[in-house]
Amino acid sequence: MNIVLCEPSELSSDGSLVLTGTRATHLRRVLKVATGSLVRIGVVDGPLGVGTVTAVDDGTVTLRCTVEETRPERPRVDLLLALPRPKVMRRLWAHLAAMGVGQIILTNAEKVERDYFDSHTLEPEGYRPLLIEGLQQAKDTRIPKVSIHKQFRKLIEDDLDGLCPEARRIVAHPQTIGSPEGLPYGMTGSPEGLPYALLAVGPEGGWNDFELALLMQHGFEPMSMGPRTLATTTACIALLALVHAAVDIRRVG
Amino acid sequence: MNIVLCEPSELSSDGSLVLTGTRATHLRRVLKVATGSLVRIGVVDGPLGVGTVTAVDDGTVTLRCTVEETRPERPRVDLLLALPRPKVMRRLWAHLAAMGVGQIILTNAEKVERDYFDSHTLEPEGYRPLLIEGLQQAKDTRIPKVSIHKQFRKLIEDDLDGLCPEARRIVAHPQTIGSPEGLPYGMTGSPEGLPYALLAVGPEGGWNDFELALLMQHGFEPMSMGPRTLATTTACIALLALVHAAVDIRRVG
Repeated sequence: MNIVLCEPSELSSDGSLVLTGTRATHLRRVLKVATGSLVRIGVVDGPLGVGTVTAVDDGTVTLRCTVEETRPERPRVDLLLALPRPKVMRRLWAHLAAMGVGQIILTNAEKVERDYFDSHTLEPEGYRPLLIEGLQQAKDTRIPKVSIHKQFRKLIEDDLDGLCPEARRIVAHPQTIGSPEGLPYGMTGSPEGLPYALLAVGPEGGWNDFELALLMQHGFEPMSMGPRTLATTTACIALLALVHAAVDIRRVG
Repeated sequence: MNIVLCEPSELSSDGSLVLTGTRATHLRRVLKVATGSLVRIGVVDGPLGVGTVTAVDDGTVTLRCTVEETRPERPRVDLLLALPRPKVMRRLWAHLAAMGVGQIILTNAEKVERDYFDSHTLEPEGYRPLLIEGLQQAKDTRIPKVSIHKQFRKLIEDDLDGLCPEARRIVAHPQTIGSPEGLPYGMTGSPEGLPYALLAVGPEGGWNDFELALLMQHGFEPMSMGPRTLATTTACIALLALVHAAVDIRRVG
């Protein structure tokens, strides 16, 4: 936990913030704060800031906070992901929020089992604490927007333009042959880079032919990481790193 | 499990391979093999191949295998990692083997607690099955070489040249400012690329000033992934993806 995130409603207008529960425990036991300690904080979907500890008692830590004028920039990468099995998805939320994604679009596919959609981890009260955990790790405040789509074809044909206007669309697929002209290498070498990207990651076992063709018809360009086949968690982190590098080159260049 | 790995001693000279235990269970229950089914196999530190199922009974699957003439190329990236806490390390082995590393050099650092070195996951019988799990996912056969070093300074000053001759040395550090001239962007844009790289990843909380200075004195160039601070697992996967991309551009270019 590199920052402590609070909800906007928790921060009073005079800047005081009263923490209880796991956040207070973390500050007391791990960071061992005392009166006068400085703590990096953030407001969910708002600015970063700093809090000075004004009181510590048994279950409570009280801070006096000041926040920055602007909030962190929205990550320039969105993720379209074929829903993995619940155990994998549960561990993935924090990784995704830490890597930085603007939105997470979860979809059905042939190789996704229907009962995966019944998992508690797809309910906001299931995933929101895990996204916040990842943001607290990465010092970000913006919670990725999450949407869940049980009809792949309707998502791609009808909904995606509204969800992700103007993103460059990239689909990772194990069977694609990588090349220096292809993504991501071509992207990182490009003087223009990418302003904003939507990365599609398929189920373990891959998209089927219909799904891949539909994605390509709707503007997705294939990329590959080579001959190694990765599990969903490893693949998402690795691919997000590459697409972020391609996007960020434009910002720092 | 995208291939089934066997030890060289398990494969008899006529190509027959008798599997029991979890590998047999996986073939029977998940892949639902029957007599005549084809299964992708590999020999630990040897070649990939194909097996034809010749018999299936209660606890056993018997295959007749043919193997390729050459074995997979050694990954061109090595990892020098400040030992994370045992729970994290245990989950990391399979990710590292799946991403592809030639060797894993685990080291002490100021922010590594001494008792991390007492974990069962640092014994070959603890980590070898986890490395094999990652290789079976990524369709590779080469087990990363593992070495464990309790003296950081001795490792860097005395041992590293022998362990990793001729590798370009890169150190990831959160406080480094990334730039398009820096790594990894500079690397991927370079026509030469990297033949072989050693990536150093610090503890959560980072290398201390002495450690970072010693690494830089011994040829490590800093890279950053930007302002986000990542947990060890996320950071290792993301950084390996970027360094692999920098190395692989040379091979496919």
